[in-house]
Amino acid sequence: MTAASDTANDRPDVCVLGLGLIGGSVLRAARVAGRECFGFDVSASALEAAAAEGFSVEDNLDAVLRRADVAGALLVVAVPLPQVEELLTRVVAMNRASLITDTVSVKTTVLQLVRKLKLDNRYAGGHPMAGLETAGWESSSAALFDGAPWMVGTEDDTHRMPWRQAVALALDCGAQVVPIDARAHDDAVARVSHLPHVLAEVLAATGADGGPLALGLAAGSFRDGTRVAAAPPALVRAMTDGNRPAVMAAVEDALERLQQAHRALAAAHPLDALITAGRKARAALDELEPGEITGIVPGDPGWREAMRSKAHEGLRLRAL
Amino acid sequence: MTAASDTANDRPDVCVLGLGLIGGSVLRAARVAGRECFGFDVSASALEAAAAEGFSVEDNLDAVLRRADVAGALLVVAVPLPQVEELLTRVVAMNRASLITDTVSVKTTVLQLVRKLKLDNRYAGGHPMAGLETAGWESSSAALFDGAPWMVGTEDDTHRMPWRQAVALALDCGAQVVPIDARAHDDAVARVSHLPHVLAEVLAATGADGGPLALGLAAGSFRDGTRVAAAPPALVRAMTDGNRPAVMAAVEDALERLQQAHRALAAAHPLDALITAGRKARAALDELEPGEITGIVPGDPGWREAMRSKAHEGLRLRAL
Repeated sequence: MTAASDTANDRPDVCVLGLGLIGGSVLRAARVAGRECFGFDVSASALEAAAAEGFSVEDNLDAVLRRADVAGALLVVAVPLPQVEELLTRVVAMNRASLITDTVSVKTTVLQLVRKLKLDNRYAGGHPMAGLETAGWESSSAALFDGAPWMVGTEDDTHRMPWRQAVALALDCGAQVVPIDARAHDDAVARVSHLPHVLAEVLAATGADGGPLALGLAAGSFRDGTRVAAAPPALVRAMTDGNRPAVMAAVEDALERLQQAHRALAAAHPLDALITAGRKARAALDELEPGEITGIVPGDPGWREAMRSKAHEGLRLRAL
Repeated sequence: MTAASDTANDRPDVCVLGLGLIGGSVLRAARVAGRECFGFDVSASALEAAAAEGFSVEDNLDAVLRRADVAGALLVVAVPLPQVEELLTRVVAMNRASLITDTVSVKTTVLQLVRKLKLDNRYAGGHPMAGLETAGWESSSAALFDGAPWMVGTEDDTHRMPWRQAVALALDCGAQVVPIDARAHDDAVARVSHLPHVLAEVLAATGADGGPLALGLAAGSFRDGTRVAAAPPALVRAMTDGNRPAVMAAVEDALERLQQAHRALAAAHPLDALITAGRKARAALDELEPGEITGIVPGDPGWREAMRSKAHEGLRLRAL
């Protein structure tokens, strides 16, 4: 396949499977970007609301998958992790040609399922790093991904065409692409996405144990630190169960730091080491200005490894 | 002293000692409320900026304390905890008559100092539960305390007149008063103010250990969870050192919950108990509609205990 035909095939129709916050936002953003798009969900209220806005959506999964097959549409799997296997099994049965990406927050688990079902030559995973403490189509927005990092799965054996389609979709949604393998992604998000949820739950519960007086004295630090404790329980469960080994490692690191802090307090020592490390880390976050990955041509020898190496340095793709 | 003269004496001039974020905001809010006010700080830039806005401020502490003595002004101690003892020692030397409150975030320590210096018959502590990750006069705002809870120290031996003046100041600043003793305050804020800072530092440092890739994938949950890690180190140190026993207890509770979570993950059990507790706690925070304390007359038998009892239920004073 030549570079010219690559470009022509990068932006096929978009078929979004699951119209919650993320899937709904992908459908909206794809339409804004001028892509033909359609979708599937089982929620009557989501379907009704989406249809009222002129989106082509329905609750017949097999029909949607056949339609995508005929159109050569990119499949975007945007259902919760526990539903991915059943959905991919339907893809195997009903759709022969579509390339596939997804938006699920745990990548190694989805990759295993994809390989088990022998869909890996059609698949490049994805994970937009955007979310709200709210859920559902009614919270979705075409602007949700503006400027956000969006992981696109870049394994040693990832095929170029699904990878290009996943990247093009992310860019069309306004995101910046972080090309990395599933394992590195899961380790990283365990620290910066899943651990924050666990600590928010811990903080919320520990604060509430102080009774109405404590909650009534809570100011911004407690509100901010517990915001994601309002997230849907199923979402948090999917993160922590689905990414268990990496979450355990992140929790162990946090436990070690918290135990050190406790030992310092018990010895009447100041928490200077922790405070310095925390402040430096937050400053690094605030000063983040991700550079751009350029000059690596998908298909050239070593392109995947070269992409990953840049992503590890914090760089992002801003164009295909 | 009659109730009528009480009312006349509730709102004397206001003398703010320390013009950082909190002290500066008190000075601004007191002026907006129509109170005569003046202040002290040693920072040339803060003094210059405050004077340029027409505030009467200077860097001669003894002169300011004498002026407050002559005027019968309420002293508002708004310096960091480590500087409180030296400042109160100057108060003993230079000011015979002013009643005293403060805005320091740890109340038992200040109360001990006040008692040691035999100022307790002139003192009722205070702590406005408002703050930003920024500091200094340049961040101060008359609106900082709008609707915020403001603890006013209510011990068994708190005198009525300093208590009334501290309450009136908080109300003039737009806050709602939580009348509670120092010990209960420190235990509560360890959970909802000091622990959030410790966990924010832990989260920030653990995230940064994931390198540029992890920080680059950070989304809202990490940003929110680490916001107060940007707070001035001296402030965090003053909280954790100054409130050590209560912070230790809160850290122990958080450690226990985090260890339980780790054990559940290791056993491949879902984190349902933690997730349910965290979500319920956050919902309680979001649904908080503090009732009003009414019908308790300061000076009546048992008024302090009655106030505290209502505060423990989550109620607040909205009028004197």
